[in-house]
Amino acid sequence: MADLMDNKVLMAFASYATIVVSKMMFMSTATAFFRITKKVFANPEDCASFGKGENAKKYLRTDESVERVRRAHLNDLENIVPFLGIGLLYSLSGPDLSTALLHFRIFVGARIYHTIAYLLPLPQPNRGLAFFAGYGVTLSMAYSLLRNKLYL
Amino acid sequence: MADLMDNKVLMAFASYATIVVSKMMFMSTATAFFRITKKVFANPEDCASFGKGENAKKYLRTDESVERVRRAHLNDLENIVPFLGIGLLYSLSGPDLSTALLHFRIFVGARIYHTIAYLLPLPQPNRGLAFFAGYGVTLSMAYSLLRNKLYL
Amino acid sequence: MADLMDNKVLMAFASYATIVVSKMMFMSTATAFFRITKKVFANPEDCASFGKGENAKKYLRTDESVERVRRAHLNDLENIVPFLGIGLLYSLSGPDLSTALLHFRIFVGARIYHTIAYLLPLPQPNRGLAFFAGYGVTLSMAYSLLRNKLYL
Repeated sequence: MADLMDNKVLMAFASYATIVVSKMMFMSTATAFFRITKKVFANPEDCASFGKGENAKKYLRTDESVERVRRAHLNDLENIVPFLGIGLLYSLSGPDLSTALLHFRIFVGARIYHTIAYLLPLPQPNRGLAFFAGYGVTLSMAYSLLRNKLYL
Repeated sequence: MADLMDNKVLMAFASYATIVVSKMMFMSTATAFFRITKKVFANPEDCASFGKGENAKKYLRTDESVERVRRAHLNDLENIVPFLGIGLLYSLSGPDLSTALLHFRIFVGARIYHTIAYLLPLPQPNRGLAFFAGYGVTLSMAYSLLRNKLYL
Repeated sequence: MADLMDNKVLMAFASYATIVVSKMMFMSTATAFFRITKKVFANPEDCASFGKGENAKKYLRTDESVERVRRAHLNDLENIVPFLGIGLLYSLSGPDLSTALLHFRIFVGARIYHTIAYLLPLPQPNRGLAFFAGYGVTLSMAYSLLRNKLYL
C-alpha cells in the first residue's frame, strides 16, 4: 500500500488528475455565479428569494453566458472521465516516468487552455486545438495500455 | 493484491463509492419511469408503441418532472465523478481511517440529501447546502492529497 | 506495483475499460462530424469561417442528428462512469477470473450494441435491452462488492 503511492508515476497521475478535476469542479461555481448575478434559474425553488409567484417565474429562463459555461462543463466531463479511467490504468501499467509526465502535462495544459478559450471566448481554432490535444493524449495512453497489457 | 483490499480505507472507499454510484444509477430508472408514465420521449422509436405516425409524434416533447430528474442526474455526474477520481487517489495516499470515513460519510449523506431536496423539491437552501457539503468534502480530499503527495 | 498489473482480472478490466472508454470518446468525433457536415453549431465562434455577422448566425441552431449523437454520448457517460468506478473496485476485490470476464464482456458488448441501436436507429426494444444489460452487469458487480467487502 505504501509502495503503491511511492511509485512516482502514480504520484504524478494523482497530482495532475487532482488539479484537472479541481478545475472541472470550478465550472460548477462559475455556473452558480452567472445564475445568481444574471438571475437565470432552472428551478422555481431557486428564484423564490427574488420574488413571489408570477414575479419569480420570469427568472426561469436560459442565458447564453450560463449555457456557455454549462457546455464547457459538459465537454470537461466528456474528456476528463476518459483521462481519469485510462490514465489511472496506464499509470499502473508501468510506463516510463518521463513519457507519463509528458502525457499528463499536455493533457492538463490543454484542458486549462480549452476552458479559457471557451469562456472568453477565443476565436477558433483555439478551442478545437486544445480539445484535440487532450483527446490525442488520452488515445495515446489507451494505445500504450492495449499494446502492453491486452487481456481479453 | 490481497493486501490492497485488506486496507481499511480502501475498503471503506469501495463501500461508500459503490453506494453513491448505485444511487446515481437510480436516476436513470427514475427518468425512464417518468418518461413512460407521462409519455414524454426524446426519440421517435421510443414512442412507436404508443401510436403510429403523426399520432406518435405528439409524445416527442419535454416535461418538467423529466427535466428535473435529468438535471439532478447531471448534477450527480458533475459531483460524483470528482469524488470517484480524487477519493480513490486520496484513499491510496494513506490517510487516517477516521478522517477518511468522515469524508466519505458526509459526501454520501450530502448527495442522498441533494437528490431528495431536488426531487421533492425542498425549498432552498436545502439543495444548495447539500451541494456545497459534498463539494467541500471533495475539495478537502484534493487539498490533503496535493499537500502530501504533490509530484509535478 | 508490477504485481498489481500481473493480476489477470485487473489486466482484463484495463483492456475492456479502455475499449469502452475509447468507444465513448468516438462520440465526440461523431458530434463534430455532424456539426461540420450539417453546419449546426452551438457557439458563434465555431461558425465564423462559414460567413460573417448575420450570415453566420443562421448556423447557430439545433439538428436532430446532432442531438441524437449527444443523447447517446450522455447516456454513455451516465453508464460508463459507474462501470469504471465500480468495475475497478470490483476487480481489486479478488473476484473469480471467469466471472469477472463474463461481466466485462457483456457490459462492453451491450454498450457497443446500445450505440449502434441509438445511431441507426434500431426499433425498440433493441436500445432498451442493451441499456438494461449494461445496467444489470454494473449492479451485479456492485452487489458482489458490497457483499464481500462492506465496511461502513
